[in-house]
Amino acid sequence: MECEYCGELVKYNFGDFLYETPFWIIFLAPNQSNLGTCVIALKRKDRFLNALYPEEWIDFTKIVDDLEFSLKEAFNATMFNWGSLMNSFYLEGTPEPHLHWHFIPRYDHDVEFQGEVFTDPFFGYMRPRPPQEISNDLREKIAEDILYHLKK
Amino acid sequence: MECEYCGELVKYNFGDFLYETPFWIIFLAPNQSNLGTCVIALKRKDRFLNALYPEEWIDFTKIVDDLEFSLKEAFNATMFNWGSLMNSFYLEGTPEPHLHWHFIPRYDHDVEFQGEVFTDPFFGYMRPRPPQEISNDLREKIAEDILYHLKK
Repeated sequence: MECEYCGELVKYNFGDFLYETPFWIIFLAPNQSNLGTCVIALKRKDRFLNALYPEEWIDFTKIVDDLEFSLKEAFNATMFNWGSLMNSFYLEGTPEPHLHWHFIPRYDHDVEFQGEVFTDPFFGYMRPRPPQEISNDLREKIAEDILYHLKK
Repeated sequence: MECEYCGELVKYNFGDFLYETPFWIIFLAPNQSNLGTCVIALKRKDRFLNALYPEEWIDFTKIVDDLEFSLKEAFNATMFNWGSLMNSFYLEGTPEPHLHWHFIPRYDHDVEFQGEVFTDPFFGYMRPRPPQEISNDLREKIAEDILYHLKK
Protein backbone atom coordinates (compact mmCIF):
# COMPACT_ATOMS: atom_id res chain seq x y z
CA MET A 1 0.00 0.00 0.00
CA GLU A 2 1.33 3.39 -1.00
CA CYS A 3 -0.70 5.82 1.10
CA GLU A 4 -1.01 6.50 4.79
CA TYR A 5 -4.70 5.64 5.16
CA CYS A 6 -4.72 2.64 2.80
CA GLY A 7 -3.81 0.24 5.59
CA GLU A 8 -7.08 1.08 7.33
CA LEU A 9 -8.99 -0.01 4.24
CA VAL A 10 -7.32 -3.34 3.47
CA LYS A 11 -10.29 -5.36 4.74
CA TYR A 12 -12.64 -3.55 2.37
CA ASN A 13 -11.05 -4.94 -0.79
CA PHE A 14 -11.64 -1.71 -2.71
CA GLY A 15 -8.90 -2.60 -5.23
CA ASP A 16 -5.44 -1.33 -6.17
CA PHE A 17 -4.28 2.09 -5.02
CA LEU A 18 -4.38 4.56 -7.91
CA TYR A 19 -3.89 7.98 -6.33
CA GLU A 20 -5.04 10.09 -3.43
CA THR A 21 -6.32 13.59 -2.83
CA PRO A 22 -6.53 15.50 0.46
CA PHE A 23 -9.73 13.69 1.50
CA TRP A 24 -10.20 10.64 -0.75
CA ILE A 25 -8.33 7.61 -2.05
CA ILE A 26 -8.97 6.36 -5.57
CA PHE A 27 -8.64 2.62 -6.23
CA LEU A 28 -8.77 0.62 -9.45
CA ALA A 29 -11.73 -1.63 -8.59
CA PRO A 30 -11.23 -5.41 -8.38
CA ASN A 31 -13.89 -5.92 -11.08
CA GLN A 32 -12.69 -4.56 -14.45
CA SER A 33 -15.46 -6.08 -16.57
CA ASN A 34 -16.26 -2.42 -17.25
CA LEU A 35 -12.82 -1.12 -18.15
CA GLY A 36 -11.58 1.56 -15.77
CA THR A 37 -14.06 0.96 -12.93
CA CYS A 38 -12.87 2.72 -9.76
CA VAL A 39 -13.76 3.04 -6.09
CA ILE A 40 -13.34 6.39 -4.33
CA ALA A 41 -13.09 5.98 -0.55
CA LEU A 42 -13.20 8.66 2.13
CA LYS A 43 -9.97 9.01 4.15
CA ARG A 44 -11.77 8.92 7.49
CA LYS A 45 -14.48 6.84 9.07
CA ASP A 46 -18.03 7.78 8.19
CA ARG A 47 -21.03 6.21 6.55
CA PHE A 48 -23.53 8.87 5.43
CA LEU A 49 -23.13 11.36 2.63
CA ASN A 50 -24.75 14.03 4.76
CA ALA A 51 -21.76 13.76 7.11
CA LEU A 52 -19.34 15.05 4.47
CA TYR A 53 -17.71 18.42 5.14
CA PRO A 54 -17.84 21.05 2.38
CA GLU A 55 -14.13 20.66 1.66
CA GLU A 56 -14.61 16.90 1.21
CA TRP A 57 -17.43 17.51 -1.28
CA ILE A 58 -15.35 20.05 -3.19
CA ASP A 59 -12.44 17.63 -3.30
CA PHE A 60 -14.81 14.91 -4.54
CA THR A 61 -16.15 17.07 -7.37
CA LYS A 62 -12.60 17.52 -8.62
CA ILE A 63 -12.20 13.73 -8.69
CA VAL A 64 -15.42 13.45 -10.73
CA ASP A 65 -14.00 15.96 -13.16
CA ASP A 66 -10.59 14.29 -13.34
CA LEU A 67 -11.80 10.70 -13.70
CA GLU A 68 -14.45 11.48 -16.33
CA PHE A 69 -11.84 13.40 -18.30
CA SER A 70 -9.24 10.66 -18.00
CA LEU A 71 -11.55 7.80 -18.97
CA LYS A 72 -12.76 9.66 -22.04
CA GLU A 73 -9.20 10.32 -23.09
CA ALA A 74 -7.83 6.90 -22.22
CA PHE A 75 -10.57 4.55 -23.46
CA ASN A 76 -13.16 6.81 -25.12
CA ALA A 77 -15.79 5.96 -22.48
CA THR A 78 -19.28 6.98 -23.60
CA MET A 79 -20.73 7.94 -20.20
CA PHE A 80 -20.45 7.12 -16.52
CA ASN A 81 -22.43 5.61 -13.65
CA TRP A 82 -21.77 7.16 -10.23
CA GLY A 83 -23.20 5.67 -7.07
CA SER A 84 -22.81 5.57 -3.33
CA LEU A 85 -24.87 2.54 -2.42
CA MET A 86 -23.29 1.06 0.74
CA ASN A 87 -25.71 -1.87 0.70
CA SER A 88 -23.39 -4.80 1.29
CA PHE A 89 -22.13 -3.39 4.59
CA TYR A 90 -25.54 -4.03 6.05
CA LEU A 91 -25.30 -7.76 5.52
CA GLU A 92 -24.12 -9.93 8.38
CA GLY A 93 -20.41 -10.58 8.81
CA THR A 94 -19.28 -7.49 6.90
CA PRO A 95 -17.03 -4.71 8.19
CA GLU A 96 -18.40 -1.43 9.47
CA PRO A 97 -19.76 0.76 6.63
CA HIS A 98 -17.09 2.98 5.09
CA LEU A 99 -18.23 5.78 2.83
CA HIS A 100 -17.21 5.31 -0.78
CA TRP A 101 -18.33 5.89 -4.36
CA HIS A 102 -18.46 3.57 -7.34
CA PHE A 103 -17.36 4.99 -10.68
CA ILE A 104 -18.30 2.79 -13.62
CA PRO A 105 -17.37 3.87 -17.14
CA ARG A 106 -19.85 2.70 -19.78
CA TYR A 107 -19.16 2.01 -23.44
CA ASP A 108 -21.31 1.90 -26.55
CA HIS A 109 -18.41 0.14 -28.30
CA ASP A 110 -15.79 -2.52 -27.58
CA VAL A 111 -12.39 -1.38 -26.42
CA GLU A 112 -9.19 -3.24 -27.18
CA PHE A 113 -6.39 -2.49 -24.76
CA GLN A 114 -3.07 -4.31 -24.67
CA GLY A 115 -4.55 -7.16 -26.69
CA GLU A 116 -7.55 -7.67 -24.37
CA VAL A 117 -11.07 -6.83 -25.54
CA PHE A 118 -13.44 -5.17 -23.07
CA THR A 119 -17.16 -5.11 -23.88
CA ASP A 120 -20.24 -3.54 -22.29
CA PRO A 121 -23.05 -5.84 -23.43
CA PHE A 122 -25.58 -4.22 -21.07
CA PHE A 123 -24.86 -0.64 -22.12
CA GLY A 124 -28.02 1.33 -21.29
CA TYR A 125 -28.84 -0.92 -18.35
CA MET A 126 -27.58 -1.57 -14.82
CA ARG A 127 -26.71 -5.26 -14.77
CA PRO A 128 -23.67 -6.25 -12.71
CA ARG A 129 -21.34 -8.74 -14.39
CA PRO A 130 -18.77 -11.09 -12.91
CA PRO A 131 -15.17 -9.84 -13.09
CA GLN A 132 -13.28 -10.23 -16.36
CA GLU A 133 -10.20 -12.34 -15.57
CA ILE A 134 -7.14 -10.25 -16.39
CA SER A 135 -3.48 -10.46 -15.39
CA ASN A 136 -1.89 -8.27 -12.72
CA ASP A 137 0.31 -6.88 -15.44
CA LEU A 138 -2.74 -5.73 -17.40
CA ARG A 139 -4.28 -4.23 -14.26
CA GLU A 140 -1.10 -2.20 -13.82
CA LYS A 141 -1.24 -1.00 -17.40
CA ILE A 142 -4.87 0.09 -16.99
CA ALA A 143 -3.89 2.00 -13.84
CA GLU A 144 -0.96 3.64 -15.62
CA ASP A 145 -3.17 4.71 -18.50
CA ILE A 146 -5.79 6.27 -16.23
CA LEU A 147 -3.10 8.15 -14.31
CA TYR A 148 -1.41 9.28 -17.51
CA HIS A 149 -4.63 10.87 -18.77
CA LEU A 150 -5.65 12.63 -15.58
CA LYS A 151 -5.97 16.37 -16.12
CA LYS A 152 -2.62 17.95 -15.40
CA MET B 1 -46.63 21.52 -12.39
CA GLU B 2 -45.69 24.02 -9.73
CA CYS B 3 -42.26 25.23 -10.81
CA GLU B 4 -40.94 27.16 -13.75
CA TYR B 5 -38.63 24.46 -15.13
CA CYS B 6 -40.93 21.49 -14.45
CA GLY B 7 -42.62 21.82 -17.84
CA GLU B 8 -39.30 21.10 -19.53
CA LEU B 9 -39.09 17.80 -17.69
CA VAL B 10 -42.58 16.40 -18.25
CA LYS B 11 -41.39 13.85 -20.80
CA TYR B 12 -38.87 12.42 -18.33
CA ASN B 13 -41.52 11.09 -15.94
CA PHE B 14 -39.38 11.87 -12.89
CA GLY B 15 -42.44 11.87 -10.61
CA ASP B 16 -44.45 14.40 -8.59
CA PHE B 17 -42.98 17.81 -7.84
CA LEU B 18 -41.86 17.98 -4.19
CA TYR B 19 -39.80 21.15 -3.92
CA GLU B 20 -37.10 23.09 -5.70
CA THR B 21 -33.81 24.76 -4.83
CA PRO B 22 -31.88 27.35 -6.86
CA PHE B 23 -30.41 24.67 -9.16
CA TRP B 24 -32.38 21.43 -8.68
CA ILE B 25 -35.93 20.11 -8.61
CA ILE B 26 -36.85 17.31 -6.23
CA PHE B 27 -39.55 14.86 -7.31
CA LEU B 28 -41.27 12.03 -5.45
CA ALA B 29 -40.31 9.16 -7.75
CA PRO B 30 -43.01 7.20 -9.58
CA ASN B 31 -41.82 3.98 -7.92
CA GLN B 32 -42.46 4.04 -4.17
CA SER B 33 -41.68 0.36 -3.51
CA ASN B 34 -38.90 1.84 -1.38
CA LEU B 35 -40.84 4.41 0.61
CA GLY B 36 -39.65 7.96 -0.02
CA THR B 37 -37.67 7.34 -3.20
CA CYS B 38 -36.91 10.64 -4.94
CA VAL B 39 -35.38 11.97 -8.14
CA ILE B 40 -33.28 15.14 -8.07
CA ALA B 41 -33.05 16.77 -11.50
CA LEU B 42 -30.82 19.63 -12.63
CA LYS B 43 -32.69 22.81 -13.65
CA ARG B 44 -30.79 23.15 -16.90
CA LYS B 45 -29.77 20.87 -19.74
CA ASP B 46 -26.65 18.84 -19.17
CA ARG B 47 -25.66 15.21 -19.00
CA PHE B 48 -22.30 14.78 -17.24
CA LEU B 49 -21.53 15.31 -13.58
CA ASN B 50 -18.25 16.96 -14.50
CA ALA B 51 -20.26 19.74 -16.15
CA LEU B 52 -21.75 20.87 -12.83
CA TYR B 53 -20.76 24.30 -11.57
CA PRO B 54 -19.49 24.62 -8.00
CA GLU B 55 -22.66 26.37 -6.88
CA GLU B 56 -24.74 23.50 -8.30
CA TRP B 57 -22.68 20.97 -6.34
CA ILE B 58 -22.99 23.00 -3.15
CA ASP B 59 -26.73 23.24 -3.66
CA PHE B 60 -26.87 19.47 -4.24
CA THR B 61 -24.98 18.70 -1.02
CA LYS B 62 -27.61 20.63 0.91
CA ILE B 63 -30.31 18.49 -0.70
CA VAL B 64 -28.41 15.35 0.37
CA ASP B 65 -28.34 16.69 3.89
CA ASP B 66 -32.00 17.69 3.90
CA LEU B 67 -33.40 14.52 2.34
CA GLU B 68 -31.38 12.13 4.50
CA PHE B 69 -32.50 14.08 7.57
CA SER B 70 -36.12 14.12 6.51
CA LEU B 71 -36.35 10.42 5.64
CA LYS B 72 -34.80 9.41 8.94
CA GLU B 73 -37.27 11.59 10.80
CA ALA B 74 -40.31 10.71 8.71
CA PHE B 75 -39.92 6.95 8.24
CA ASN B 76 -36.83 5.97 10.25
CA ALA B 77 -34.91 5.01 7.09
CA THR B 78 -31.83 2.93 7.91
CA MET B 79 -29.53 4.17 5.15
CA PHE B 80 -29.60 5.53 1.61
CA ASN B 81 -28.55 4.68 -1.93
CA TRP B 82 -27.46 7.62 -4.08
CA GLY B 83 -26.75 7.24 -7.75
CA SER B 84 -26.44 9.13 -10.99
CA LEU B 85 -26.65 6.36 -13.55
CA MET B 86 -28.20 7.87 -16.69
CA ASN B 87 -28.22 4.49 -18.44
CA SER B 88 -31.70 4.37 -19.90
CA PHE B 89 -31.18 7.57 -21.90
CA TYR B 90 -28.75 5.70 -24.08
CA LEU B 91 -31.38 3.28 -25.29
CA GLU B 92 -33.11 3.99 -28.55
CA GLY B 93 -36.26 6.10 -28.57
CA THR B 94 -35.53 7.87 -25.28
CA PRO B 95 -35.26 11.62 -24.72
CA GLU B 96 -31.93 13.40 -24.57
CA PRO B 97 -30.02 12.63 -21.35
CA HIS B 98 -30.93 14.97 -18.50
CA LEU B 99 -28.69 14.99 -15.45
CA HIS B 100 -30.41 13.66 -12.34
CA TRP B 101 -29.82 11.68 -9.15
CA HIS B 102 -31.71 8.78 -7.65
CA PHE B 103 -32.25 8.83 -3.89
CA ILE B 104 -33.44 5.50 -2.52
CA PRO B 105 -34.08 5.16 1.22
CA ARG B 106 -33.41 1.64 2.52
CA TYR B 107 -35.02 -0.04 5.52
CA ASP B 108 -34.01 -2.89 7.80
CA HIS B 109 -37.62 -2.97 9.02
CA ASP B 110 -41.14 -2.69 7.65
CA VAL B 111 -42.80 0.71 7.77
CA GLU B 112 -46.52 1.21 8.15
CA PHE B 113 -47.75 4.55 6.90
CA GLN B 114 -51.40 5.52 6.55
CA GLY B 115 -52.42 1.88 6.75
CA GLU B 116 -50.06 0.75 3.96
CA VAL B 117 -47.07 -1.48 4.74
CA PHE B 118 -43.79 -0.80 2.93
CA THR B 119 -41.08 -3.46 3.00
CA ASP B 120 -37.49 -3.68 1.79
CA PRO B 121 -37.00 -7.41 1.22
CA PHE B 122 -33.65 -6.90 -0.55
CA PHE B 123 -32.12 -4.68 2.14
CA GLY B 124 -28.35 -5.01 1.77
CA TYR B 125 -28.63 -5.61 -1.97
CA MET B 126 -29.36 -3.61 -5.12
CA ARG B 127 -32.32 -5.35 -6.70
CA PRO B 128 -34.90 -3.15 -8.40
CA ARG B 129 -38.53 -4.01 -7.68
CA PRO B 130 -41.69 -3.18 -9.58
CA PRO B 131 -43.65 -0.22 -8.20
CA GLN B 132 -45.92 -0.77 -5.20
CA GLU B 133 -49.44 0.20 -6.30
CA ILE B 134 -50.59 3.06 -4.10
CA SER B 135 -53.31 5.68 -4.42
CA ASN B 136 -52.66 9.26 -5.45
CA ASP B 137 -53.93 10.27 -2.05
CA LEU B 138 -51.25 8.18 -0.35
CA ARG B 139 -48.58 9.61 -2.69
CA GLU B 140 -49.63 13.09 -1.60
CA LYS B 141 -49.42 12.11 2.06
CA ILE B 142 -45.90 10.69 1.57
CA ALA B 143 -44.89 13.94 -0.12
CA GLU B 144 -46.40 16.02 2.70
CA ASP B 145 -44.57 13.97 5.31
CA ILE B 146 -41.19 14.35 3.58
CA LEU B 147 -41.71 18.09 3.23
CA TYR B 148 -42.85 18.40 6.85
CA HIS B 149 -39.63 16.77 8.10
CA LEU B 150 -37.19 18.71 5.94
CA LYS B 151 -34.70 20.64 8.06
CA LYS B 152 -36.10 24.07 8.75
